[in-house]
Amino acid sequence: MRIWQKITHFSLIAVLATSLSAWAPSAYADDSNTEQPQRIILVIADGMGFPYLTAYRYFKDGRNYTRASDIDPTIFDQYLVGAASTYPADDTLVTDSAASATALATGIKTYNGAISVDADGNPLKTMMQISRENGWLTGAIATTRVTHATPAAFYTHVPSRRMEDEIADQFATLDENGQPVFDLLLGSGRKHFVRTDEDGNEINHLTTLTNAGVRVVSTYEELHAQQRLPVLGLFFDDAFPYVIDDEMRLEQLSRHGLRLLDHAEQPYVVMIEASMVDWCGHANDIACAMREMEELDHLMQFLETYANENPGTQVLLTADHSTGGLTLGADGNYQWRAADVARIGRGLRTMAEDMTSMPFIDWEAYVEQYLPFPLTVDQQNALQAVAQDTGSRHRQRIQDVLIDIVRYHTSTGWTTGGHTGEDVPVIAIGPWSEHFRGFQDQTDIADIIINWLQ
Amino acid sequence: MRIWQKITHFSLIAVLATSLSAWAPSAYADDSNTEQPQRIILVIADGMGFPYLTAYRYFKDGRNYTRASDIDPTIFDQYLVGAASTYPADDTLVTDSAASATALATGIKTYNGAISVDADGNPLKTMMQISRENGWLTGAIATTRVTHATPAAFYTHVPSRRMEDEIADQFATLDENGQPVFDLLLGSGRKHFVRTDEDGNEINHLTTLTNAGVRVVSTYEELHAQQRLPVLGLFFDDAFPYVIDDEMRLEQLSRHGLRLLDHAEQPYVVMIEASMVDWCGHANDIACAMREMEELDHLMQFLETYANENPGTQVLLTADHSTGGLTLGADGNYQWRAADVARIGRGLRTMAEDMTSMPFIDWEAYVEQYLPFPLTVDQQNALQAVAQDTGSRHRQRIQDVLIDIVRYHTSTGWTTGGHTGEDVPVIAIGPWSEHFRGFQDQTDIADIIINWLQ
Ligand SMILES: [Zn+2]
Ligand SMILES: [Zn+2]
Repeated sequence: MRIWQKITHFSLIAVLATSLSAWAPSAYADDSNTEQPQRIILVIADGMGFPYLTAYRYFKDGRNYTRASDIDPTIFDQYLVGAASTYPADDTLVTDSAASATALATGIKTYNGAISVDADGNPLKTMMQISRENGWLTGAIATTRVTHATPAAFYTHVPSRRMEDEIADQFATLDENGQPVFDLLLGSGRKHFVRTDEDGNEINHLTTLTNAGVRVVSTYEELHAQQRLPVLGLFFDDAFPYVIDDEMRLEQLSRHGLRLLDHAEQPYVVMIEASMVDWCGHANDIACAMREMEELDHLMQFLETYANENPGTQVLLTADHSTGGLTLGADGNYQWRAADVARIGRGLRTMAEDMTSMPFIDWEAYVEQYLPFPLTVDQQNALQAVAQDTGSRHRQRIQDVLIDIVRYHTSTGWTTGGHTGEDVPVIAIGPWSEHFRGFQDQTDIADIIINWLQ
Repeated sequence: MRIWQKITHFSLIAVLATSLSAWAPSAYADDSNTEQPQRIILVIADGMGFPYLTAYRYFKDGRNYTRASDIDPTIFDQYLVGAASTYPADDTLVTDSAASATALATGIKTYNGAISVDADGNPLKTMMQISRENGWLTGAIATTRVTHATPAAFYTHVPSRRMEDEIADQFATLDENGQPVFDLLLGSGRKHFVRTDEDGNEINHLTTLTNAGVRVVSTYEELHAQQRLPVLGLFFDDAFPYVIDDEMRLEQLSRHGLRLLDHAEQPYVVMIEASMVDWCGHANDIACAMREMEELDHLMQFLETYANENPGTQVLLTADHSTGGLTLGADGNYQWRAADVARIGRGLRTMAEDMTSMPFIDWEAYVEQYLPFPLTVDQQNALQAVAQDTGSRHRQRIQDVLIDIVRYHTSTGWTTGGHTGEDVPVIAIGPWSEHFRGFQDQTDIADIIINWLQ
């Protein structure tokens, strides 16, 4: 009885949605009659819980002082369609990136740490592997090591996310026809592809892949010059730098990645990860997180245009979990100082690292250069105290003081250096967005996409 | 969950592929052709940010140990349609309940503390006042004082939410025809209606209202016996007790309120506030908050049935802001212990109050009765330390230790005793739910409702 009522209810909503012609750009309208999308772009913003969306809206607006309803919605707001639960199949209710990426890549929940293996360690076929069997091109783009949990779970199977060398080995293993298992793979982590193993043997997967016809590139310019797939781009040995300390890169990686996929004139599915929102969250660094969100904003603007210009495109953006327990307002203050967050000029972890190799006399000027707030006496004393500490937590203790300074001046709250279990946003651009409306589990998202690929 | 989703998707595809014609099996379908709903029920869950919805789902499931995708969605999940921003028209980006209720009641943003006056102190016409001018019945139901910010902003106008006596005066002021300004008003706060003023004069608004034909009741039984409006129910002198310490009441108040509104056979708009989710959030008391959510769940189950049985009904549930900076997981633990939250038997504030008048020797047994966790040595020492404190913060210090005990054993994070600025959920039941889909500002919600009333 209740099921039928809900069907009716939802069907009605669908009818209303389709009759409201203004809800989406007109190019989408024709596509909705085709059975399934031909260009599927799954964007995962690692760690981007709902608070990051609200914070970014006000950060982008850039004012501390606001009157009336004049804050513009972001592109995330414009295409928000629902929320997703993310709990893993263990006893925690709070997922890590490995279990969550496995759920999104396979539709099956697993334990924290697992890379596309189930609770018993059996490999789970991923959407990339299913696509490939059905003649689709596949790709992954990340702003971290391609061997890191999220991209890894779309292509490889290991019982622990820490096994990044084994993950690189699986990325480099050719199929029975001597072909690579991916068409496009862009990120960092060259050190896992070119390394010396435990027995002292040189391993160079890049040679193997090059011999199999993969173009291996290591600079953005080289990527731009590529004309055909398969392509492997490894732009850093280890991680990418933070956007706040360096430059944006995700939009250009994605633009050239999609150009190459389109050139092949086959249906494709690609996973794009905004990897480092999560890293900033772990560091309890709000300005760092907002700069990664800004990069994601640029990506989504590009994808919006791309979806309008390329029929059969469906874009979906979600997060694997939230990170840090971010809140706007903290410690009893009914205030969040967006403009002050926007004035912060450097990542707190990077600052702490710089300060470990800098004489104390230079600290205050350095801190005030990048955190343009008057330091309180307590904060000055705290810096002095950690300056005298030479223990193993020296860098972390400096960083903790910097976190406190930012918390004090911006009223940004954090509850943890880890993840939290709240539902995450679901954002969709394209004619099939209706499928993702309302509340769902993240495995439902995977099921819908996998169903399209078969 | 899975079955429901699959059927929904199937039916969506079916409907999208066919025309708008005769898909009309339920009472809703006929309604969609009428211009506007005739029964508008706006539920405001004070303080209920997104984390409360996730937490409640797992609390209701009641297990610490969970495998696979077998956690049922709640009624909140089933009807989630979007999110709303809540920033006020001052320099904070974090709203209080007064500014937020004003925005929801009038469609105009104002400063924190304002009760339906604008930034210059001018009164703003509320949706209840507009409805009344257009022949609609109006009502408000709350689980706190009707003079508290949220119900107050739907009927009265004062520059500060603290002016609860003036708010009672305005509720008791008759219109030019000698009629009360409300048809239904249920909550607490009798002390503001019957009081002695600064000059020693007895004020009894209940007599005035009774003489104007209002039935004034003070017990649930008296409410149940009422057969016609107008009705004023004030069930406590000050606040209601917490659900965790007492009993649920919101569903029965609402059931009898709607019965009376229906009896009059006129269109109506009613605001129902789940007032004390916020209070539990301020107290950083997760079990308290979950019991208030459970009461709200019961209300929504009732309203779902009511909406199905009564054509022309539109239910909307949102929050005015989030409270406490709640997160699932804290302090580096990738875990939230839902079942342990469910074992907590009493509100932390109530416990702290009890303990202030209890010999220390009884404390440990009392604490372990209601917080069934083994206390650490640190926690025992902390209790001992506050027992020796006889300062003015005695009760609060006890409560802080209890909060720490719960945080330690359940990994529930909080960042503040105040509010936070993240977007809040929007949940809708009824044929007009499509209007509230996706992201919106809370003033957009008010604008849609007010447009219906005119
Ligand atoms: Zn993480
Ligand atoms: Zn509050």
